[in-house]
Amino acid sequence: MPLNGVDTPTLFATIKAVGAEPALANFQFRAKSRWLSGTHSESTIHGFFGAGGEQTHVAPYKAESDHPRVLCGADAAPSPVEWVLHALASCLAAGIGNIAAARGIKLTRVESTVEGDIDLRGLLGLSKDVRNGYERIAVSFEIDGDASPDQLRQVVMQSQARSAVFDILTNGVPVSVSAKTLAAA
Amino acid sequence: MPLNGVDTPTLFATIKAVGAEPALANFQFRAKSRWLSGTHSESTIHGFFGAGGEQTHVAPYKAESDHPRVLCGADAAPSPVEWVLHALASCLAAGIGNIAAARGIKLTRVESTVEGDIDLRGLLGLSKDVRNGYERIAVSFEIDGDASPDQLRQVVMQSQARSAVFDILTNGVPVSVSAKTLAAA
Repeated sequence: MPLNGVDTPTLFATIKAVGAEPALANFQFRAKSRWLSGTHSESTIHGFFGAGGEQTHVAPYKAESDHPRVLCGADAAPSPVEWVLHALASCLAAGIGNIAAARGIKLTRVESTVEGDIDLRGLLGLSKDVRNGYERIAVSFEIDGDASPDQLRQVVMQSQARSAVFDILTNGVPVSVSAKTLAAA
Repeated sequence: MPLNGVDTPTLFATIKAVGAEPALANFQFRAKSRWLSGTHSESTIHGFFGAGGEQTHVAPYKAESDHPRVLCGADAAPSPVEWVLHALASCLAAGIGNIAAARGIKLTRVESTVEGDIDLRGLLGLSKDVRNGYERIAVSFEIDGDASPDQLRQVVMQSQARSAVFDILTNGVPVSVSAKTLAAA
């Protein structure tokens, strides 16, 4: 039965279909980004590949990013490192919704606070001993539903165990960066 | 002189101030997230700690996230793994804006496409040999400005070398997840 807004029969059927035809599991997600001014940019997220073909979201989503004023940005939007925290919180929340539904647990509240600690001497080039990125990230959930505290905590832990963004952040990913210039000198 | 929308005198003064008082470099960024239904959630990004005290963005920023329909979501927003690509693209773009300004290069165009390849058998629990997250991410920039192609490419490479999100994604971060339950069983 559908639960928590999750169509569990369709979810189980999808997992079964992918199990029977693993090529359906190959996805490529994409963002197109355009620099606007200073530290301000805008991404468009629309098309992706998956389930055997090209797909599109129901609409082209746009999102901006900027540095805060204390870091000399215009603060037109959240900063890039804050978007990382949003990605992590939302990936864990989505997993919690799905996993609780699969286990027949009705959720009434799931909230989290994500905190990322960073020493800016790294990215400002002021210290070679300090990394550019977060030193640590802590996620604190408050979860409520029609199951025991232990069952609810196990849903959170299973979401962590299957989270794409948790894996990306904790284990790292090979990233290649290339640049093409169009102008002659 | 200010360039590319970057107030370079203030940027250099900020770097100098942090060099003189390293405690100013300790920042904590935060997101608060609320599960809505299914795989749909919303984050609020407002306060952060840095430059010696509590700070707030000019406004509380809100951002949603959801799974696409082909993955049984309602597609109300970009997916968590797409937010990771936005974070990376926008971090590199912000660095390019700052670094070009510091080098006296006027930019006329900076665009990127970010692609992340993922085999969903990992997060669907269908294979123990497949990771949950991206197998690889590729960023392709097109950059134009009043400098040689080589100088422009070097701006992109220096942005990568100082990027917080590039470091986070390629080198990983320790992430702790905790859960508090409020309801009795």
